[in-house]
Amino acid sequence: MGMDKFSANGEGKASEYLYPPEILKRLDFSNSPAIFKPKISATQPGEDWMVVRPLQRSDYDKGFLQLLGQLTSVGNVTRKQFDERFTQMKQSGGYYVTVIEDTRSSKIIGAATLTIEQKFIHNCSFRGRLEDVVVNDTYRGKQLGKLIVVTVSLLAQELGCYKMSLDCKDKLIKFYETLGYKMEPGNSNAMNMRFDDPS
Amino acid sequence: MGMDKFSANGEGKASEYLYPPEILKRLDFSNSPAIFKPKISATQPGEDWMVVRPLQRSDYDKGFLQLLGQLTSVGNVTRKQFDERFTQMKQSGGYYVTVIEDTRSSKIIGAATLTIEQKFIHNCSFRGRLEDVVVNDTYRGKQLGKLIVVTVSLLAQELGCYKMSLDCKDKLIKFYETLGYKMEPGNSNAMNMRFDDPS
Repeated sequence: MGMDKFSANGEGKASEYLYPPEILKRLDFSNSPAIFKPKISATQPGEDWMVVRPLQRSDYDKGFLQLLGQLTSVGNVTRKQFDERFTQMKQSGGYYVTVIEDTRSSKIIGAATLTIEQKFIHNCSFRGRLEDVVVNDTYRGKQLGKLIVVTVSLLAQELGCYKMSLDCKDKLIKFYETLGYKMEPGNSNAMNMRFDDPS
Repeated sequence: MGMDKFSANGEGKASEYLYPPEILKRLDFSNSPAIFKPKISATQPGEDWMVVRPLQRSDYDKGFLQLLGQLTSVGNVTRKQFDERFTQMKQSGGYYVTVIEDTRSSKIIGAATLTIEQKFIHNCSFRGRLEDVVVNDTYRGKQLGKLIVVTVSLLAQELGCYKMSLDCKDKLIKFYETLGYKMEPGNSNAMNMRFDDPS
């Protein structure tokens, strides 16, 4: 894809963010029940070579899709496909794909997505969803899973969601409980219908 | 709200649909594992006074919000709020609020929402979600719950989703299983974090 489609105002530039990075500075980590030892946050992630920020177009070249591949099947997504999906997400609004970059290697080492669904119920409210959480497991012990999940959870609250939801595996229930998520008795069943092989 | 904001091309008119109603004609109910006795479908819902269609702006006056109120707290949503949310959903795309109307009384008697989430995973695929399913319980015995859920599930498939998901109460698991939804062993936990009272 040529640079000719890129506009002067930053839209379409490699450095373009999916959402305004300033929002992340407003998050108050003391509002989360999560316990960080040592204390870290989106703006102070614990290492000076680490940054928590919105997805950028240039993350196609920083291993973002390869990291997602540690979570599930991604397939052979071309730069054009990535770029188009990025544009569509931005136009639709409500997509808060958030990443952790190791700036020494220019690699994405953690990611989580908050999507915001518009509702009529609860006074035309918003519901947040946590999706596609993944951390490069060579960075264990740096609380990055906790960091990225708490970041997008606080983001959901900051953006006015009345609740934030996730589906998870049995072995992750305890982890999410420490971050403030709960199983609601009698109402905690995630069901799926699959239409085809997502390969 | 005055009529002056309504444009000539149908946008903003009371009859305006949230999504093109023609899509519903393309759904093949023989693709669903659901068993209807007698056989009904979105285009042949079983009674000539019943119609399955996308949400319209005029549904504010047809009891749509009151029906949602049978499901959960809706609050006092003004016509302006409803209209703005309708417009925002249409602009964002991915919102398929679908209703059943009793055309004798001009009342909405059933509703379900399909939301479509854009993904990077699975080759930049789409994930569908079933939300806010409700049927007026004075219409029991007409298979309307099954009808509205199968309609939006087939819609998700028609629109290219690789899977469709829902969260449900224990007592509804069997119902959804008859429609093709499954609990996935070890991976069927719906968790929530609530930020405030959704009154």
